[in-house]
Amino acid sequence: MSEDQTIEAPEVEETEDAYSLGRKAVAQILYAVDLEDRDQLVELMDPLHPADIADLLEQINAFDRMRLIKLYDKEFDGDILSELDESIREEVIGILSPEVLAEAVRELDSDDVVDLLEDLEEQQQEAILDVLEDSDRVAVQQSLTYPEYSAGRLMQREVVMAPEHWNVGEAIDYLRNTDDLPEQFYHIVLVDPRLRPVGNVTLGKLMASRREVLLKSLVEDTFHVIPVLQYEGDVAYAFNQYHLISAPVVDENERLVGVITIDDAMAVLDEEHEEDVLRLAGVDSESSLSDRVAETTKRRFPWLFVNLITAVLASLVIAQFEAAIAQVVALAVLMPIVASMGGNAGTQSLTVAVRALATKDLTGSNVWRVIRREVLVGLINGLAFAVIMGIVGYVWFGSTALGGVIAAAMVINLVVAGLAGTGIPIVLEKLGIDPALASGAFVTTVTDVVGFFAFLGLAVVVLL
Amino acid sequence: MSEDQTIEAPEVEETEDAYSLGRKAVAQILYAVDLEDRDQLVELMDPLHPADIADLLEQINAFDRMRLIKLYDKEFDGDILSELDESIREEVIGILSPEVLAEAVRELDSDDVVDLLEDLEEQQQEAILDVLEDSDRVAVQQSLTYPEYSAGRLMQREVVMAPEHWNVGEAIDYLRNTDDLPEQFYHIVLVDPRLRPVGNVTLGKLMASRREVLLKSLVEDTFHVIPVLQYEGDVAYAFNQYHLISAPVVDENERLVGVITIDDAMAVLDEEHEEDVLRLAGVDSESSLSDRVAETTKRRFPWLFVNLITAVLASLVIAQFEAAIAQVVALAVLMPIVASMGGNAGTQSLTVAVRALATKDLTGSNVWRVIRREVLVGLINGLAFAVIMGIVGYVWFGSTALGGVIAAAMVINLVVAGLAGTGIPIVLEKLGIDPALASGAFVTTVTDVVGFFAFLGLAVVVLL
Repeated sequence: MSEDQTIEAPEVEETEDAYSLGRKAVAQILYAVDLEDRDQLVELMDPLHPADIADLLEQINAFDRMRLIKLYDKEFDGDILSELDESIREEVIGILSPEVLAEAVRELDSDDVVDLLEDLEEQQQEAILDVLEDSDRVAVQQSLTYPEYSAGRLMQREVVMAPEHWNVGEAIDYLRNTDDLPEQFYHIVLVDPRLRPVGNVTLGKLMASRREVLLKSLVEDTFHVIPVLQYEGDVAYAFNQYHLISAPVVDENERLVGVITIDDAMAVLDEEHEEDVLRLAGVDSESSLSDRVAETTKRRFPWLFVNLITAVLASLVIAQFEAAIAQVVALAVLMPIVASMGGNAGTQSLTVAVRALATKDLTGSNVWRVIRREVLVGLINGLAFAVIMGIVGYVWFGSTALGGVIAAAMVINLVVAGLAGTGIPIVLEKLGIDPALASGAFVTTVTDVVGFFAFLGLAVVVLL
Repeated sequence: MSEDQTIEAPEVEETEDAYSLGRKAVAQILYAVDLEDRDQLVELMDPLHPADIADLLEQINAFDRMRLIKLYDKEFDGDILSELDESIREEVIGILSPEVLAEAVRELDSDDVVDLLEDLEEQQQEAILDVLEDSDRVAVQQSLTYPEYSAGRLMQREVVMAPEHWNVGEAIDYLRNTDDLPEQFYHIVLVDPRLRPVGNVTLGKLMASRREVLLKSLVEDTFHVIPVLQYEGDVAYAFNQYHLISAPVVDENERLVGVITIDDAMAVLDEEHEEDVLRLAGVDSESSLSDRVAETTKRRFPWLFVNLITAVLASLVIAQFEAAIAQVVALAVLMPIVASMGGNAGTQSLTVAVRALATKDLTGSNVWRVIRREVLVGLINGLAFAVIMGIVGYVWFGSTALGGVIAAAMVINLVVAGLAGTGIPIVLEKLGIDPALASGAFVTTVTDVVGFFAFLGLAVVVLL
């Protein structure tokens, strides 16, 4: 984005530590734990939001965590459990006494309990289900019948709805006479006699309108209904694309079964992004900063193993040219440059393509134009770096032919990088494989193999 | 997350094309443009959300875009402009006739106009400011006095507020008698006599409470106030961390100046993520799929140039060992494997560290534990791959010494990769440099240089 030269403006405050717990605050809390000073601990923790307490627990080590939780005891809030990273949630639940756990879980909304339960082992699941009240347990168990990562798991079952023929006055009277309205709601969902949602009315509009106005005349322009089995990533996309605040969820008969609100969609969007970033780097998307060494090692190994195979593959290409390298050792010096440039250019194209696929910006209607663009970009940058490396090769080793060989190999590899970086994720997506997960290894294999083969092959033809 | 073995569930529907415009729909629209059939075009476009129309315009080529917009003419909605990618927004504004542009912009909320204006050139900015009504123009110009990427740019200026001493009845009467309530609002902000916000009351709570209840007794547990100069990324973090729906914005005197809603925060979160992913891959974070070849080439070049320098640096290391390579050509065959494994392991550590810094999960209190973990993971995986490559090296070239050399180099480089992958982004963050932007080049330089040096150096000592 361009700066606004027209306007003199104060500086934006990029406060690095705006929300992170200070090192000092953490030290004070751990000191209270050391002294087993419960009053002091409770006083220090009291102003913290459950999300910040969860972050704190994730950042300290397992021993401190155990001591802190035991000392904090009955103050432990259910929301802390909801906010905790999955990787240490089981550990924390194991530390809590049964009474504290029961109390903590009973405070939670049913959709938060679902979120908590789905990652636990069966035994812990049952322990938690047992402490719930009957009505809550039924709600939680019904939610668990929907598949993981579905809209059904995300939704709240408490919906505020009204018949489509009501007017404002009827709706307001209904709301004011209903005892058990949900904690948070933003819309009244209008439904037809068969309980199919037909529109949303915001509470603000309701407030601002006269009693005799029909609800039907107040519905929002953008109305989006979500199928209960829809993938949560698509739900998050819809919220972001259409600026939804809440959206009704319907079953296969198009009947209203629940509502999803934007805060849950935002959390999903955040997770999806996180997964994409990590997968692109070959890190298991379920790993977390709180994982231990053994866990992390196991999670990182497979990708490194895949990379080893591709690296060996590239070495096999080099091995075909041993004789040439023995004659002209400069080839060994220069060959990694061609491979490395191809790998980087390929990763650039790849990342753009993977993101565009994820945001549904890369579709049937522009796929060929995007591929053509990436290949052309590879060609032009290839020519630029060909000139640079041609000169470097000539100056360094005093051989025009060597300069020419590396220049030609550079052009070839950068064009191939553009093609592979775009084509491979598109093909994987067509095959139903997550392109973020697998493309990286394929693309660098291609650019390594092509890079070494083009450079060394041309060298054999031209130099020997 | 683990599967729930206990529950039989239907399959989640991961509908790839749930929200992307079908190829067929695009073809129909372009066919109508070809025939210059305006009625048909309007009929086809009518059911589309402005966000989808913006996506469509981004996906077709510039010529079709121009013809479509000219044919669509007066139907062109202001919201389409808001949703358009910046890279083609100027182009589209240039195509619209002055009357259509004026009409489109007048429909927009003032915060959307600000969003539109900030990326335009001065001339286009003035053209748009000119068509606004006086009151809107003042509001837009005031917003533009806040720096880019600040909370001030993000906020709406229309706030629904009430004195802290009011009761529910007074608030409801006020709302029902106010003509110009904002289109979307979710809270009433309570303010003290000096206009400092003291709490939020949701409209739902207001609806559900008796008239004589004091607003003060209904305020939300989580209340978060945002300084007007705060960086928008921190604003998005706060919304996500504390599950906010809307939050009041205050000036340096803590007086209420506006309100930010979650949909805007969600859009910022989305952009921030996008930037992180692209930067990690060395792609300019402001590039877009609609950029042309020349633009894209220019944006990709600098990172490739940085990479060329690091690659040449690595080559200089190799050049020190030309004599050794000439004697044992197998070294040239095997050396890229060590460098490549280090690069990949380093990228894994790096990505985890960069993400953890962005989400404020990596802080002063756990930095040493995380670094130690990454180094240990590097050591263990290094040992595993040392065994594998030691055997491969021995089998391939029949030399125990060569197998031992590559094994030792592997361990060294993977330990260094863990250290560099974690340490470099942490140091950059401390220096105030975006770690996503610069770490990649540093880390692979380190792993390339160390990889080649360790392998070839050990080879000289052991083999020659």
